Amino acid sequence: MGLWDIDKIEYVGREKGPQEGLAFHYYDADKVVAGKKMKDWLRFGVAWWHTFNQELVDPFGTGTAQRPYYKYTDPMDQALAKVDYAFELFTKLGVEYFCFHDRDIAPEGDTLRETNANLDKVVDKIEENMKATGVKLLWNTSSLFTNPRFVSGAATSPFADIYAYAAGQLKKSLEIGKRLGAENYVFWGGREGYENLWNTEMKREQDHIAAFFHMCADYAKEIGMDAQFLIEPKPKEPTLHQYDFDAATAINFLRTYDLTDVFKLNLEGNHANLAGHTYQHEIRVAREAGFLGSLDANQGDKLIGWDMDEFPTDLYETVAVMWEVLAAGSIGPRGGLNFDAKPRRTSFTPEDLFRAHIAGMDSYAAGLLVAAKMHEDHYIEDLQEARYSSFDSGIGATVEDGTATLASLAEYAIDKPQSELIAATKSDHLESVKATINNYIIDALAEA
Amino acid sequence: MGLWDIDKIEYVGREKGPQEGLAFHYYDADKVVAGKKMKDWLRFGVAWWHTFNQELVDPFGTGTAQRPYYKYTDPMDQALAKVDYAFELFTKLGVEYFCFHDRDIAPEGDTLRETNANLDKVVDKIEENMKATGVKLLWNTSSLFTNPRFVSGAATSPFADIYAYAAGQLKKSLEIGKRLGAENYVFWGGREGYENLWNTEMKREQDHIAAFFHMCADYAKEIGMDAQFLIEPKPKEPTLHQYDFDAATAINFLRTYDLTDVFKLNLEGNHANLAGHTYQHEIRVAREAGFLGSLDANQGDKLIGWDMDEFPTDLYETVAVMWEVLAAGSIGPRGGLNFDAKPRRTSFTPEDLFRAHIAGMDSYAAGLLVAAKMHEDHYIEDLQEARYSSFDSGIGATVEDGTATLASLAEYAIDKPQSELIAATKSDHLESVKATINNYIIDALAEA
Amino acid sequence: MGLWDIDKIEYVGREKGPQEGLAFHYYDADKVVAGKKMKDWLRFGVAWWHTFNQELVDPFGTGTAQRPYYKYTDPMDQALAKVDYAFELFTKLGVEYFCFHDRDIAPEGDTLRETNANLDKVVDKIEENMKATGVKLLWNTSSLFTNPRFVSGAATSPFADIYAYAAGQLKKSLEIGKRLGAENYVFWGGREGYENLWNTEMKREQDHIAAFFHMCADYAKEIGMDAQFLIEPKPKEPTLHQYDFDAATAINFLRTYDLTDVFKLNLEGNHANLAGHTYQHEIRVAREAGFLGSLDANQGDKLIGWDMDEFPTDLYETVAVMWEVLAAGSIGPRGGLNFDAKPRRTSFTPEDLFRAHIAGMDSYAAGLLVAAKMHEDHYIEDLQEARYSSFDSGIGATVEDGTATLASLAEYAIDKPQSELIAATKSDHLESVKATINNYIIDALAEA
Amino acid sequence: MGLWDIDKIEYVGREKGPQEGLAFHYYDADKVVAGKKMKDWLRFGVAWWHTFNQELVDPFGTGTAQRPYYKYTDPMDQALAKVDYAFELFTKLGVEYFCFHDRDIAPEGDTLRETNANLDKVVDKIEENMKATGVKLLWNTSSLFTNPRFVSGAATSPFADIYAYAAGQLKKSLEIGKRLGAENYVFWGGREGYENLWNTEMKREQDHIAAFFHMCADYAKEIGMDAQFLIEPKPKEPTLHQYDFDAATAINFLRTYDLTDVFKLNLEGNHANLAGHTYQHEIRVAREAGFLGSLDANQGDKLIGWDMDEFPTDLYETVAVMWEVLAAGSIGPRGGLNFDAKPRRTSFTPEDLFRAHIAGMDSYAAGLLVAAKMHEDHYIEDLQEARYSSFDSGIGATVEDGTATLASLAEYAIDKPQSELIAATKSDHLESVKATINNYIIDALAEA
Repeated sequence: MGLWDIDKIEYVGREKGPQEGLAFHYYDADKVVAGKKMKDWLRFGVAWWHTFNQELVDPFGTGTAQRPYYKYTDPMDQALAKVDYAFELFTKLGVEYFCFHDRDIAPEGDTLRETNANLDKVVDKIEENMKATGVKLLWNTSSLFTNPRFVSGAATSPFADIYAYAAGQLKKSLEIGKRLGAENYVFWGGREGYENLWNTEMKREQDHIAAFFHMCADYAKEIGMDAQFLIEPKPKEPTLHQYDFDAATAINFLRTYDLTDVFKLNLEGNHANLAGHTYQHEIRVAREAGFLGSLDANQGDKLIGWDMDEFPTDLYETVAVMWEVLAAGSIGPRGGLNFDAKPRRTSFTPEDLFRAHIAGMDSYAAGLLVAAKMHEDHYIEDLQEARYSSFDSGIGATVEDGTATLASLAEYAIDKPQSELIAATKSDHLESVKATINNYIIDALAEA
Repeated sequence: MGLWDIDKIEYVGREKGPQEGLAFHYYDADKVVAGKKMKDWLRFGVAWWHTFNQELVDPFGTGTAQRPYYKYTDPMDQALAKVDYAFELFTKLGVEYFCFHDRDIAPEGDTLRETNANLDKVVDKIEENMKATGVKLLWNTSSLFTNPRFVSGAATSPFADIYAYAAGQLKKSLEIGKRLGAENYVFWGGREGYENLWNTEMKREQDHIAAFFHMCADYAKEIGMDAQFLIEPKPKEPTLHQYDFDAATAINFLRTYDLTDVFKLNLEGNHANLAGHTYQHEIRVAREAGFLGSLDANQGDKLIGWDMDEFPTDLYETVAVMWEVLAAGSIGPRGGLNFDAKPRRTSFTPEDLFRAHIAGMDSYAAGLLVAAKMHEDHYIEDLQEARYSSFDSGIGATVEDGTATLASLAEYAIDKPQSELIAATKSDHLESVKATINNYIIDALAEA
Repeated sequence: MGLWDIDKIEYVGREKGPQEGLAFHYYDADKVVAGKKMKDWLRFGVAWWHTFNQELVDPFGTGTAQRPYYKYTDPMDQALAKVDYAFELFTKLGVEYFCFHDRDIAPEGDTLRETNANLDKVVDKIEENMKATGVKLLWNTSSLFTNPRFVSGAATSPFADIYAYAAGQLKKSLEIGKRLGAENYVFWGGREGYENLWNTEMKREQDHIAAFFHMCADYAKEIGMDAQFLIEPKPKEPTLHQYDFDAATAINFLRTYDLTDVFKLNLEGNHANLAGHTYQHEIRVAREAGFLGSLDANQGDKLIGWDMDEFPTDLYETVAVMWEVLAAGSIGPRGGLNFDAKPRRTSFTPEDLFRAHIAGMDSYAAGLLVAAKMHEDHYIEDLQEARYSSFDSGIGATVEDGTATLASLAEYAIDKPQSELIAATKSDHLESVKATINNYIIDALAEA
Repeated sequence: MGLWDIDKIEYVGREKGPQEGLAFHYYDADKVVAGKKMKDWLRFGVAWWHTFNQELVDPFGTGTAQRPYYKYTDPMDQALAKVDYAFELFTKLGVEYFCFHDRDIAPEGDTLRETNANLDKVVDKIEENMKATGVKLLWNTSSLFTNPRFVSGAATSPFADIYAYAAGQLKKSLEIGKRLGAENYVFWGGREGYENLWNTEMKREQDHIAAFFHMCADYAKEIGMDAQFLIEPKPKEPTLHQYDFDAATAINFLRTYDLTDVFKLNLEGNHANLAGHTYQHEIRVAREAGFLGSLDANQGDKLIGWDMDEFPTDLYETVAVMWEVLAAGSIGPRGGLNFDAKPRRTSFTPEDLFRAHIAGMDSYAAGLLVAAKMHEDHYIEDLQEARYSSFDSGIGATVEDGTATLASLAEYAIDKPQSELIAATKSDHLESVKATINNYIIDALAEA
């Protein structure tokens, strides 16, 4: 049964009643859906920080998590032991990717040099395990938000020494990313924002972080590190305002500072909700603008105002996400679905880690099956095509081909009576559209 | 095809793909589920104000609704014509109940006496139609919020003449309720609250409305009107604060003013969300306290801060609602599911009215099927029973039988080591619970 | 006493106790503050739709407003009469600007041609009054959201005829703007967004509206209309999602479609809150990016999820807004403070219209006085300068002059111990900053 | 300069410009306002957990706080040292009360017996310091939420051993409260709620906690502990739902379980906001129902969805709170203003602790001064009296004296024309009311 005392999770197909056993009911890794294997559409990744480091604390409670490697009390011993536990978990879940922050995998020393030495030891072991198992690095990143030195930001810190330190930390992270063949490299600006606008030079801070990103891009090029760079939007937590509020805000930043060639976005459902958006909205925005990079697979509670990082189980959301992914052809050029999620604090056993991943993987596999069915039927495509068809010819076509002017359109419209205008607008019978989405969920999954 | 130019809606069973046709796919009125016919569990009601009067306006747009009876331009003519349209719609949908505000069905005159005369004419016609069709009145109510005289409230108005007028209006409404055999009578306090706390004597206003409710109860008794009285909680709209914020607040009011024998609650999903709660939460609160009266079947968007009154299509919500209803045995003593819902403003044709009700009825029928399956399996019951089993015997039983004291419990606990305490807490593996809910939805509906 | 039966509002200076009289206590139009007259900093504008047309309805109540011109029952008569009432109100308040939608000032005919004829008559009268009084047009705009033909959008409508009609409407609006010497021209995309993402081709819709904006810019150039074009961001109302969600989103749109030379932003406090931001944040974003165009002077309630359009009275907000304006040198190139605000529904007398404007104007005048005092003391400037001083020389300067690289910064940081890094971060004692803002409010206004 | 290296904070009166020095500008402890000394109206308390234990962590960052007693690394040594620091801080701030959780002041042992022994040692030292300084205990409480054994609740835990342990913990806490002469005893149900409704027997849990409260009351009586018991409402954090959602919900609970004689409420501004209310609303609800017990002095950010626990500086809020307190005559029978607040994470020096308390104390003192001025002028009283005057005689008086019936009121109203009803409603010119509040703030504080 290995380190985790749990058997490999197998696909068993749909079963009735309570989901008590540890098995996949929808996720059948090698099953071909919409022309690709499930696993290649989904490219699941395990998040080191949540899955291995999260003690299940909250602002009013200490850790409840029970983990077998807590028996290792020396930080380096524990860090190294976790590598074994991690790769066994990846293998047992059949997850082919993982993600980590530099500070997730090795303890800090007093200086960056000492910390980097710690990192090297753990990275050696990770590299061995990657070779042995074939598990790959979806992305790595740098924690520029946990340590108190980053209290006022890292690349937007008002303190140049902290900025310099962050740059040093990034240099090492990019080197590790190159060494481990990272598919992507993520920047989450957890402290890049403000607590109070009165003491903040917002533009100067953004100039600084743009310079930082350019330096990172230059260095990656210099060392031949070819991971896709990603910004991860999130609003309102932990600082009062974060600069990467949502997808549109992040893209605006990239356009402003000439960073559109280098960066795409890593989006997350819970972050979308905190910004007032659905996850589908954020993905649509990024997809249509050419900035879809990778996805964090989690969910929030729309009645709650903080980042819950629940494992995703809402089928409406997984269907919508996977519909967008199918429309895009893939999750960005090299992206995947990283489980930036933790079991609830009351689900604290090691087994719960597996249960939670299974629930998340099955929910996204189910989402893929439903979305694939919808695409196969051209349901949404047909509905949209019909709805916009007046722009395919006639006066509408002059808008799309650029020959229309205010004057030409005004002349067209000037004597149309209201009745004709009302007749030109068509009902979209949205309630039937919603019933149809329900129907596709039942249809596709009943067959699964 | 009748007035609406639409055939009677029939149950056709599940069909694949887009829900384009006008038919029920889950709602099979006479099918027995959990010991009762579907229609008797659900007791659907059509809301006169939304279905017949709602022009699909919003704060920034005028009406888009297209309704056949708009050809009647005289208010009384239109009011009378609507009765025919209404009962045909009820019959074609197979809905056996309806609900209305006094002002929905007849235009106001300059005085209450004139208005009452208008009402009598329409009520005559409604009564005839009820007899002819067997359709019943789930509840009626009085609009004490639309007219400008109620700008500062009705039963909490600072102006005694307005209070008196509201009382007169109620008197007539109760008489109509008696005449039409209303199962319930609803009070929605749309203007009973405040715009600003500085100019508001909150307690005095609440004393006034409590007196009002007692007068209503007295009068109903006097005339032998036996409808169940219901308060409908709603927060934050249209006034800044409304006194019936949520279920717990409304129950507190009833307890404070000795109104618990007379009133129960009419709950609504969208109102629950505006108060920061799920619909299931509000129903649970009312059910366990003995105040579940009736339900409004609609849904909101948790990312939006106003009352959307969408037709209900979220299966997670309909399953949760119907699970609570099954646990209660019925929707209150005489309640039902009133569609306090309107099609989206972009779904403006007469046909959309039918589509929207079909989507809502099917979604609640589906919720019933899923919840019945869960109850049949005792899934939730077993899970809860196991979770609280430590209170069935031993030290826990002393808590429940009232023999425990702080001292007896302290003595029991005083030398227990932390390890033993932690061992006494059990994981609830919530992620598997959520996956199971998903599974029941697919299972139950795939079989439908 | 004129049409309104109210005397001209005079500045009387600060008075103690209740503000019962109709007088300015802070707004002293010609008083020089920070080098300009108050009126030239503030450039107040009256919003035609709220001040003259708003009947004080809400989604659950009909109009309560009492207005003297309701005696005119013919739409054109009333429209023409309102012009007299409007200019008398402007003059009595000492407001030098006004704003309107095309549909605010004249009723629609059955065709655009007929509507334009109605418009011409009212515009004639407005023009005369402008000449006679010296009151100017801060901006005009076109209502592309109220009429049912715009149910699914105007420049993003899926129906080409509607798009064409909107273009025709714009053509006329631009001509009117030119004729009346509009300082700015505003686009509020109230219906430009979506109700549901499933039936929406988001990018195609945005391509359409970008084309629309380019046509408008071309036509303005063609006819020599030189008003500053402005987009007004607003999220979540009336459609589920609006494309101009907030300042950053709107700027991203302008950058995407090469519209940055033509457009700036018209920002609003209540809209900022609905997007999850403070008003100061939105202004800062626009100001630092060079897109500050004009401002709507109103406020919301952060606990309420819809657009309240309250007259502004929160001094914290007016201070913050005016601080940003002083930092910018002016409200955009040609902007002002338009009162996109209505009295509460319970404040329904004609006198309340004056009271509400006085409260708003005084609150912004107070905000100006406080912000001017803060700038005079260089309070915020000094605090920020000190906070970022480590970037003025040494390693920080290499970041700002572009000579830093990851490698140079890493070398600088690699051996710094944690204690040195912590020492480099400075406390910002935010609680004292907040106390200082309070102090400036009291200081500056006690002297007023 | 003592342990904190800071001088005693003195009242220096208002000063212009930045609040850089460490001094009170409004809080003049012995100044008589509205018949009592400032300190007796305000009864400030320092919260042990925030002021001495809070390391300024957040969910994404470790502690930034710099505290002189961190040099003590043994938990008991540090706990005992903190007592000295605490009482010096109380004395230097001139705060006469403090509050603590049992687990704030002493480390846990492996068993409750061991923990209680630790507690006794620290309590001995606290008692000595109380005698020496005259500082009193505003309230104590028990932490039933931090330790992992309480993961699923304490008095609502599904696990009887945990319930018993919580009871044991309470027994000790009540004994300590008695020994130290606690004025109040607070219950904050941080874990008393649910993560998920599906696995929760809500009523059973509430039965359990009600039994728990009765046992606590019995035990307090038994040992002669006469502190006022208080429930502290809070919604949505840390569990998904907490049973004490807001004031009305908590009062409903007390009424349901016959606990109204024993309990009042401890209210908090930030919690009020999270429940969708203003702080003034929550205080008004409790005050008018006779449940105002004590207050937590802090503030949140209404655009942020979690508990920020900012020190209070918003004068609008402190004015409103103190107006309610003046109306009540005192903060409950024995309540005070406990600073349940922490400096921002970026304000991490020991000096910031003093700055933050000064800002909070001055803001509440300012609120008192303004509210006292308003009461002195009878501003609000007069406004309300006039508004409700129609209930003082005539038909209104029959409502208040209980002689009205629906029939008598209907007869009164039946022939009143709409014009007369509209004339009976009076405008409340709310915009002038808001301007008046602003005016009182400036007036009262300019004179301070």
